[in-house]
Amino acid sequence: MSERSDSLPIVLDAMGGDAGAAPNVEGAVAAARAGVRILLVGDPVRLHAELGKHEASALSQAGLLEVVAATDVIGMDEHASDVRGRGEASINVAVKLVKDGRGAAVVSMGHSGATMASALLTFGRIPGVDRPAILNHVPTLKGFGVLLDVGANTDVKPQYLAQWARLASVYLRVVEGRENPSVGLLSIGEEEHKGNALVLEAHALLRGSADLNFYGNVEGKDIFKGTTDVVVTDGFTGNVVLKLAEGEAKVLFTWVREALTSSWRAKLGALLVRDALREIADRVDPSAYGASPLLGLRGLAFIGHGSADARAVKNALLRAARARDAALLTKLAGALQQV
Amino acid sequence: MSERSDSLPIVLDAMGGDAGAAPNVEGAVAAARAGVRILLVGDPVRLHAELGKHEASALSQAGLLEVVAATDVIGMDEHASDVRGRGEASINVAVKLVKDGRGAAVVSMGHSGATMASALLTFGRIPGVDRPAILNHVPTLKGFGVLLDVGANTDVKPQYLAQWARLASVYLRVVEGRENPSVGLLSIGEEEHKGNALVLEAHALLRGSADLNFYGNVEGKDIFKGTTDVVVTDGFTGNVVLKLAEGEAKVLFTWVREALTSSWRAKLGALLVRDALREIADRVDPSAYGASPLLGLRGLAFIGHGSADARAVKNALLRAARARDAALLTKLAGALQQV
Repeated sequence: MSERSDSLPIVLDAMGGDAGAAPNVEGAVAAARAGVRILLVGDPVRLHAELGKHEASALSQAGLLEVVAATDVIGMDEHASDVRGRGEASINVAVKLVKDGRGAAVVSMGHSGATMASALLTFGRIPGVDRPAILNHVPTLKGFGVLLDVGANTDVKPQYLAQWARLASVYLRVVEGRENPSVGLLSIGEEEHKGNALVLEAHALLRGSADLNFYGNVEGKDIFKGTTDVVVTDGFTGNVVLKLAEGEAKVLFTWVREALTSSWRAKLGALLVRDALREIADRVDPSAYGASPLLGLRGLAFIGHGSADARAVKNALLRAARARDAALLTKLAGALQQV
Repeated sequence: MSERSDSLPIVLDAMGGDAGAAPNVEGAVAAARAGVRILLVGDPVRLHAELGKHEASALSQAGLLEVVAATDVIGMDEHASDVRGRGEASINVAVKLVKDGRGAAVVSMGHSGATMASALLTFGRIPGVDRPAILNHVPTLKGFGVLLDVGANTDVKPQYLAQWARLASVYLRVVEGRENPSVGLLSIGEEEHKGNALVLEAHALLRGSADLNFYGNVEGKDIFKGTTDVVVTDGFTGNVVLKLAEGEAKVLFTWVREALTSSWRAKLGALLVRDALREIADRVDPSAYGASPLLGLRGLAFIGHGSADARAVKNALLRAARARDAALLTKLAGALQQV
């Protein structure tokens, strides 16, 4: 219970995600046990039933867990634009709680497009930001780095990339304590004359930004090497990269599992190496980071995987609480204002 | 010596690549031993010195290996445009041998941009193809698939993607014996309304192409899953994807190696699982496929990694010989003419 008593709770869209309420409630209970105050938004009957499975009444009595009713849900197969006029949808209720000053940040494992749309419509943008971007955490040889945009914006302008580089630099400095984060521009060669039309223009813009620690162009191979702290790209390329990276890791681990059961000799060896290999699988598991901040809005929002498990929900809630405690929003707005 | 006596040799730019002549000559000797006739283009003194290390005189006497002199080389750090007016550069000599009917295909591990430029200037394009594309082989859960373009064209038009889908389908059918290859369009969601402006237009074009087995959009995760035989994308995204995929595999195997030496227990297990794991590393090693065809020109060209080893060179030469034997060029031109 290390939380300051005056800080606002984190708001969880507890109906969001492929598996509905169960992993959301389990993750929220775990985060509440770690001292984070949480508002659970959704169908009260469902949520209280799930809470009942986790002996959470002490947490509720301590004010760490509170249910806020929402009678509607945006389904994973609906359109992002369906958030309009659905005031009772859990994501809209959750975002509004933050807008109204009753919560510090919203976290959702539900429909990403709907979460973005709801947050954009309700919070609005920070002055100096043309488009918000989703930032993703990527495991690297040096620990982890961040990649953005990973899907909010498919067709972009050079200045968006510069704005996102700025937002990501502040995020890493403020929330992760990384001093003077380096920024790489994703391209197809290190040389500054390599890239598509967007990248060539963005390169010049980034090079001329005195407030950024611009490294230059980076390539696909640099993402996992961790050549720079931040890798900035358009939301089309970023989304392809993100899904490829997760898909490749899954396939490689499938092959490793097959290899470790391919003979009696391998099976015996597998018993001895299993723990060491599991640690790698954990490192590349997106649930280690929980959720991705949507940066550039006048409100904090974190977007997770639809397939998020309780561990991911818990980590997302802890990350949101860290961003709140670091006054991330104020610092993002300040950095953009100075430009 | 299964080769038909009337078939033209494969031409190798034997000076190309980070390590120069050594891996080229070693790979050529191995391919010649497998019955492929090869012209080695480069500095005769260097090449004969390398050949001397491999007891290749019997292969030379049998006409399987022949050296063709070229006094100049395009360095890996020069510009692609430097191929102009450098008639004695090994890549230009190699490409001209094919143009003049003295070779069936050119293979180079040298400067990719220079190889593309040389081939485009000398061969010209197949009628119906606006831009040539580099096709890359990708290991998948189902064996392997192909991805194109991986770097020849950074800013593209929708019709290029349709042309490349056609070229790749013919390549897989003719050279790899894959019936009716399926084609996926790389995007950020399966739904046809998802993607950037380029993808939305290309989707409609591909959907309307009766000669293609168009599956629809695929995502980054589908590349390693092998959802479709062909994945088509612009050369910027494709190049980022290619380098990310190779970089991620390298990092994951670095972590696996570290894990297997992290304790005495793991080291003991490693002895038992090493062979099984090495097979996976081999599967994702680009040298298994040797080189990537540059499709869409009136001449066959294969472009490999600058870091190619002898195994990659050998596999590239065998692949080029297969393409020649399958009359790939005639069939590509035929397919484009029918549209």
